[in-house]
Amino acid sequence: MPVLGVDIGGTKIAAGVVSEAAVVLRCGVTPTLAPAGYAASIAQVYRAIETMLAPEVTAIGICAPGPLNPKTGVVINPPNLPGWHDVPLARLVSESFSLPCRVENDANATALAEWKFGAGKGVQNLIFITMGTGIGGGLVINDQLQLGIGGTAGELGHMTIDFNGPRCGCGNYGCVEAYASGPAITAMGLKAVTQGLTTKIADLCENDLNRITPELIARAAQDGDEIAKDIYERAGFYLGIAAANVCVTVGPRRIIIAGGVSQAGGLLLDPIRRTVRERVTVMPVEQVEVLPSQLGNNAGVIGVACWAAKQL
Amino acid sequence: MPVLGVDIGGTKIAAGVVSEAAVVLRCGVTPTLAPAGYAASIAQVYRAIETMLAPEVTAIGICAPGPLNPKTGVVINPPNLPGWHDVPLARLVSESFSLPCRVENDANATALAEWKFGAGKGVQNLIFITMGTGIGGGLVINDQLQLGIGGTAGELGHMTIDFNGPRCGCGNYGCVEAYASGPAITAMGLKAVTQGLTTKIADLCENDLNRITPELIARAAQDGDEIAKDIYERAGFYLGIAAANVCVTVGPRRIIIAGGVSQAGGLLLDPIRRTVRERVTVMPVEQVEVLPSQLGNNAGVIGVACWAAKQL
Repeated sequence: MPVLGVDIGGTKIAAGVVSEAAVVLRCGVTPTLAPAGYAASIAQVYRAIETMLAPEVTAIGICAPGPLNPKTGVVINPPNLPGWHDVPLARLVSESFSLPCRVENDANATALAEWKFGAGKGVQNLIFITMGTGIGGGLVINDQLQLGIGGTAGELGHMTIDFNGPRCGCGNYGCVEAYASGPAITAMGLKAVTQGLTTKIADLCENDLNRITPELIARAAQDGDEIAKDIYERAGFYLGIAAANVCVTVGPRRIIIAGGVSQAGGLLLDPIRRTVRERVTVMPVEQVEVLPSQLGNNAGVIGVACWAAKQL
Repeated sequence: MPVLGVDIGGTKIAAGVVSEAAVVLRCGVTPTLAPAGYAASIAQVYRAIETMLAPEVTAIGICAPGPLNPKTGVVINPPNLPGWHDVPLARLVSESFSLPCRVENDANATALAEWKFGAGKGVQNLIFITMGTGIGGGLVINDQLQLGIGGTAGELGHMTIDFNGPRCGCGNYGCVEAYASGPAITAMGLKAVTQGLTTKIADLCENDLNRITPELIARAAQDGDEIAKDIYERAGFYLGIAAANVCVTVGPRRIIIAGGVSQAGGLLLDPIRRTVRERVTVMPVEQVEVLPSQLGNNAGVIGVACWAAKQL
């Protein structure tokens, strides 16, 4: 009995039909209309569902950026979905399509998928960290997705790594998201170029600051640029501090890194690994593996389909 | 079938016989000989067991400062037990007394006791933080004590709250233990007095720096001394940052504060509560309760007796 999974992202909406064996039978992706506000983006979610719907589909799972409540299916007020306030998404979709619907945080859904079918297979305890526009996370503890109060566990981007640090979008100070997210990496590149440092970032962006992205900085780093390498070194260090903090808290066997920023590969993963090893002294940290995610862009769709299937 | 529980602490060894209903049938406490080294302190543990042993005792549980491995029963190298290196405590005790023996981290044992019989009763997810010479912790997640790799989960004292912070005893930098433990609080009092600030701490210690302790500083604060109040305010703030980090990670319903330092009560708990509320913006933090522990000095003995009973 296949389940339709929908992944509402900051830049795209992916929808797919997922079999019981977690095979994506068919899948489609559209760029998101989220910036246009609630009416446009909810209509787009409906269209994505309509396009994929088939008679054999028995349920719908939808993942979206948090905060949202997986128990009630209400999307609260995600910064990346402007205009969405207390949207009872599970109920709306369920009524419109006459199918049961469950909603889950996108990071949690992806964590679930990676644990069951990807880089987390076979372990009982893992941390999943996704680095993109924001930094999100999910935890599997004792073979269970950890939900916490109102389903909000795993908000690892909002871990304080310096209590005197800069303000974060969430209102707190010194969150790792303010140091190592995509925009934070871009900001380090912008600073280097506006400071007039000799760096390939300036060449690659052809002196147009608007073109600087984490991907462009990664290209410069892979091309041997020392400034660009240092930017990823620092981002990895900051993320490594947060990962070390989760280690001393829950003692996971694996840390899985996902998201757009993680496509920089070793540039980012090596300093994360080094920092975790150096900073965690009170547990056998050599047993903690830091691995890239395996399922790629379909992880959210797969994870939330599994989530919905399991809940129903 | 009663179990004998032994709590090897930094300053005392407590031993007691605990009934199935977690009633301490009888109990004794001796000051620890830990500073005298391994031979003296292990002999003292044996004496504590001999004194309490009775025919109805069916098992022995021992808790000690970490790091130790609850699965193998080996005490690795606790900073507070000088000379103890890879001691197979469970095996030694079991062979000597012909009774099954299990060993657990003292913070985990106490967390278990508070969850089952104390301030944590009735919730599925809680954090337990004990503030004394060191800062330790334990987590109950989904109605289970979280052990993590080698039983080392809950090492909350070694959470980094400032990656540029001062060196901690563990070798890392900026751990909350370097900011808010008993010695860190004492150090703030020492600084105030040596700086010549006008504070009742100086009066109470009668100008003998050796007399300054967290308890003395708490007395000065309760007497209205602004410097002393500020010291606890800061310690609570630092601990609150670490607690906020655990909140965003696992989303617990309760945070239970124990240990000698926590006897300062509201002086410490109020700034912890305030900091958690101010710093956690991504979850319904009003649902998180910060409570003092309830079981007092017997919690370790009760907890480790329950642990041993459950494991056997």
